[in-house]
Amino acid sequence: MTRQEKAASFRRLHQGPDILLLPNAWDVASARIFEAAGFAAIATTSAGIAASLGYPDGEYISRDEMLEVVARITRAVSVPVTADVESGYGDALETARAVVEAGAVGMNLEDTRAEAGDSLTDLAIQTAVIRELTALQLPLVINARTDVFLAEIGEAETRLSRTLERLNAFRDAGADCLFAPGVSDPKTISLLAQDVRGPLNILATQGTPDARELQRLGVARVSIGSGAARASLGLVRRIAVELLEHGSFATMLENQIPYAELNRMLGSASA
Amino acid sequence: MTRQEKAASFRRLHQGPDILLLPNAWDVASARIFEAAGFAAIATTSAGIAASLGYPDGEYISRDEMLEVVARITRAVSVPVTADVESGYGDALETARAVVEAGAVGMNLEDTRAEAGDSLTDLAIQTAVIRELTALQLPLVINARTDVFLAEIGEAETRLSRTLERLNAFRDAGADCLFAPGVSDPKTISLLAQDVRGPLNILATQGTPDARELQRLGVARVSIGSGAARASLGLVRRIAVELLEHGSFATMLENQIPYAELNRMLGSASA
Repeated sequence: MTRQEKAASFRRLHQGPDILLLPNAWDVASARIFEAAGFAAIATTSAGIAASLGYPDGEYISRDEMLEVVARITRAVSVPVTADVESGYGDALETARAVVEAGAVGMNLEDTRAEAGDSLTDLAIQTAVIRELTALQLPLVINARTDVFLAEIGEAETRLSRTLERLNAFRDAGADCLFAPGVSDPKTISLLAQDVRGPLNILATQGTPDARELQRLGVARVSIGSGAARASLGLVRRIAVELLEHGSFATMLENQIPYAELNRMLGSASA
Repeated sequence: MTRQEKAASFRRLHQGPDILLLPNAWDVASARIFEAAGFAAIATTSAGIAASLGYPDGEYISRDEMLEVVARITRAVSVPVTADVESGYGDALETARAVVEAGAVGMNLEDTRAEAGDSLTDLAIQTAVIRELTALQLPLVINARTDVFLAEIGEAETRLSRTLERLNAFRDAGADCLFAPGVSDPKTISLLAQDVRGPLNILATQGTPDARELQRLGVARVSIGSGAARASLGLVRRIAVELLEHGSFATMLENQIPYAELNRMLGSASA
């Protein structure tokens, strides 16, 4: 399969009839587990990769370090991979080319900057960036994200219309998929899905309806962000606390992947 | 604290009265969680790091890639770190110098080679390597490991005496701590602890007595190897299966470390 065909195949997964279930990996081991479980595609999580390498989320990590992990993941799995590259590390076009180099066929692009206190990028500027990005005709599924809900920007009652305005502008600029993290209320999700002019991506968090309900509401794609990464670290903390407080290993020993199985799983990944 | 002082302080943790609880990390996030939980020192796991980067365990990873992760961990935590560097990547002395460069104050050295079908290194050769290693006078706590039990080498009834022969030869060559993974039977552990002429390290696996019992049996140090890494990946698999089979996120959402808390934890690590 050429890169173009792989990107096209990933794009088709956004067109139904089933909702696209997209788990976010942070290293090769987590990506291999998602692929072996049967997901049709895999995303990455910037927060998970950053934490693994020692950075908080929000572009403290360099583009090169982020994409080195993405490249390790794309080399290890055969399903399409889409990369979380935050707000594009200062140059979304250069980053998009590097994402393709890293072997991914999709990327997210956020419209806030951590260093600007999570303020929104000017809509005209963000739309122009997306237009330039799609004009490059790279084999990339562009998932354009607005953080109006996630970063709680503006008065609560303005967020739905502002999100729709931004996502539809991103769609008109050529974005393939439109991402509104921070929304879990079914009514709001339904209104978004109705009025957004392209496939809608929702982030699974506390209170998010399950995938069947999201599908019924019109959502095209659901991703988990750093959810699995943070759950696995939550388990590490429970293992740590049990060992320190009780000197025992029960939490660790429950449901481990056996050593030999892990090695087999990685053996078929490296080459 | 100088590197020498840090190594000396780590060495003292092997001398009681309490057993040294040593959790093995595979990336910065897991190391930060162990440190924040209160462990006095942290080990690394070769299997966990290899899996995270896309390799099976057993020196498929390069020394440089392994030690890059070790260096990220030592930069992010202030407690002593000891590195799992398998059988020394072909040159244990060069590897020991690189371990010090990476900021660790301890290293494990195994006496088998994966590429030789887990066969034992000749005892005279392994002992000579350890003698040369300790003669370098590096600020490193040397944990010399024999895999007689773990790799089930020779007839079962010969393993205890062979393990003792090898560990005591390693001790005579200057090793600081003596590691016999693959033993969980309390009687065997007790016999090992009695007859080994230095601090004994046991690996926590299925059936291993808890840390208090290990301490009572005379064990100086208990580590968890890839146990926490494999448990966290087991959880990732359960999250994956639930999402694919039921479209729901309950396993993921239970006991997650909150996003903001994870970022704060890493914020104090990066600098």
